[in-house]
Amino acid sequence: MVEENVSKLIRLMREAGISTIVSFNKYNVYYMTGFKPIEGVAAILSSNNQQYLIVPRLEYSRALEESKATVIGYSKYKVDVEPGERIVFKDLLETIFKVLREEGFASEDVGVEYSRVSYKTLKKIIEFLGEDKVKDCSEIFVRARSIKSPSEIGFIEKATRITEEGLKAALDAVSPGIREIDVAARIEYEMKIKGCRTLAFESIVASGVNAALPHATVSEKRISRGEVVIVDIGARYMEYCSDLTRTFIAGKPSSKLRDIYHAVLEAQNAAINAVKPGVKAKEVDEIARNVLREYGYGHLFIHSIGHGVGLEVHEYPGLNSENEKPLEKGMVVTIEPGVYVKGYGGVRIEDIVVVEETGPRVISRFEKSIL
Amino acid sequence: MVEENVSKLIRLMREAGISTIVSFNKYNVYYMTGFKPIEGVAAILSSNNQQYLIVPRLEYSRALEESKATVIGYSKYKVDVEPGERIVFKDLLETIFKVLREEGFASEDVGVEYSRVSYKTLKKIIEFLGEDKVKDCSEIFVRARSIKSPSEIGFIEKATRITEEGLKAALDAVSPGIREIDVAARIEYEMKIKGCRTLAFESIVASGVNAALPHATVSEKRISRGEVVIVDIGARYMEYCSDLTRTFIAGKPSSKLRDIYHAVLEAQNAAINAVKPGVKAKEVDEIARNVLREYGYGHLFIHSIGHGVGLEVHEYPGLNSENEKPLEKGMVVTIEPGVYVKGYGGVRIEDIVVVEETGPRVISRFEKSIL
Repeated sequence: MVEENVSKLIRLMREAGISTIVSFNKYNVYYMTGFKPIEGVAAILSSNNQQYLIVPRLEYSRALEESKATVIGYSKYKVDVEPGERIVFKDLLETIFKVLREEGFASEDVGVEYSRVSYKTLKKIIEFLGEDKVKDCSEIFVRARSIKSPSEIGFIEKATRITEEGLKAALDAVSPGIREIDVAARIEYEMKIKGCRTLAFESIVASGVNAALPHATVSEKRISRGEVVIVDIGARYMEYCSDLTRTFIAGKPSSKLRDIYHAVLEAQNAAINAVKPGVKAKEVDEIARNVLREYGYGHLFIHSIGHGVGLEVHEYPGLNSENEKPLEKGMVVTIEPGVYVKGYGGVRIEDIVVVEETGPRVISRFEKSIL
Repeated sequence: MVEENVSKLIRLMREAGISTIVSFNKYNVYYMTGFKPIEGVAAILSSNNQQYLIVPRLEYSRALEESKATVIGYSKYKVDVEPGERIVFKDLLETIFKVLREEGFASEDVGVEYSRVSYKTLKKIIEFLGEDKVKDCSEIFVRARSIKSPSEIGFIEKATRITEEGLKAALDAVSPGIREIDVAARIEYEMKIKGCRTLAFESIVASGVNAALPHATVSEKRISRGEVVIVDIGARYMEYCSDLTRTFIAGKPSSKLRDIYHAVLEAQNAAINAVKPGVKAKEVDEIARNVLREYGYGHLFIHSIGHGVGLEVHEYPGLNSENEKPLEKGMVVTIEPGVYVKGYGGVRIEDIVVVEETGPRVISRFEKSIL
């Protein structure tokens, strides 16, 4: 996987005329090296495929195991070093400068992510390299990561299978009297034993009035009979995220709820069917929004129709009314219309779709009839 | 809690001569407003205590519920708005500029966190306000958050009680044949139903050779008889973190393991006893390191002795050999010596200590005999 990613990055670096990129971002470091950073990590990649991974001294052994890049450990303070260990007694930035200088990377253009790196850090990099040498390479990562390789899609599918196990646990658990947090505990237990090491995001189990808030997460509220329960969860697999939502009912739905549910489902189907290479992101949003407007729920659909999914649960492309850019083959996006009624509840249904040559391929399979 | 935090920030703002601060950081926004951000959120605080919370339109209702600040929603794209809602059709930064201008904050010094805000964003803020008006306020947050109020300490204690339930579940689960990930699943289930909505960090259940890596997290490896198992976990409560480590044995410890265990425990006790206001952070590290050196394990203690704990699991102060600053009353820190033997295993023991007037108060209670 890392080799494919690196090739893609190098191609984009050459197109942009950038010789070397330095990233501090945990997702991009993982994308470039296969090493999962905790904190204080950077990766360097040159367009002739020299790869460096710079990690705190305590991560040195793990980095050697997880990555094929040249690993350099750093420590701000003197510690005893074992023979053969490549440890620099400087801070992260000074260690990066040392590599850039010694490998000759400092004499050519160096790309850094202006939208990710802190002002303080980038100022120091500009001081070291000179203003004319430092370029913004944010777009290179956004672009590379937005088009998924078959192995990346495979990981998202696996994360989706695990997430569906979580939804099944939720469906089994939801009943009058149980607390939202207990439902979440069962979901997360099930996903964990099925191979999800970390969640893609904080689980949402929002019942009744809580379901009117799109980001309600969980509370100790008990679910009452007849209440709606929005379950929005995601597992990670090999660090790739899934993100699915189902809306369950603890008992029988009212006719109002049934009406909202069917409107949301119809909006979702219309949006999914619109997904294909070349269609503008905003068009997918507009199609769902129009369906909900016809039902009189347009003003209650208070977010966009979806987003890209990958190493981050929200990544490029945003499927919103401002994004004029076309969808492309290999993108993986969510389609998640929702209707939120203050003081009453809400309905959201979310699936994950791969943009294929011939149209949408929905990779989530969990049933969507009113449950 | 928020009122105390705000008073503390305002006092530090006045000392630094900064009239208004703007933060985009999720922890600092929560600290200032009580609202828990997902993404795209900012908070503004003036030294005469005007408080603004700027959130994406889909978070508007939740923000009104969670925070007493003046809430302003923003949306980059036109959406239908309900009567009474305060929604600006701009992006986050333009919405901030609107507030700064309309409230007269733009005419005085504005503090922004140079170490947290991206280069791209801060460049735009400097363009808007003028370079002489923008000040780095990173230190104000670091300083305010490093000294915990009684209510903050209470939340950390509650998070610690929940984490101890997780350790108990781990102790019950650890036995030859079980997978690390299954132990983690039971820990997290137990913590969740006891009120932990999110983890402070990714749980570590590292057995045998995996225990030689300080940040090994979990794998599908089965635990073998006689292996060491490092369990390093933390719950959050009201967003405040706990962070505890115990080292269990799946069976009987070897005499080598017993020797390492006692050295680590002795180092920990020595370091804990050194904690009091006025002692330099580096001295606490040095005391533990000296104990381990006496046992011949100095070169195997490859990280620092501890760190501050609060809204972030790692925050100021770092207790390492470089930090000359004194500990202060109200700081909450971990004390976590460890010894790591490549290809064999490791031992780490970690507790949380409040720096009180009279010395250390250890708030974690889970037993530490070899288990």
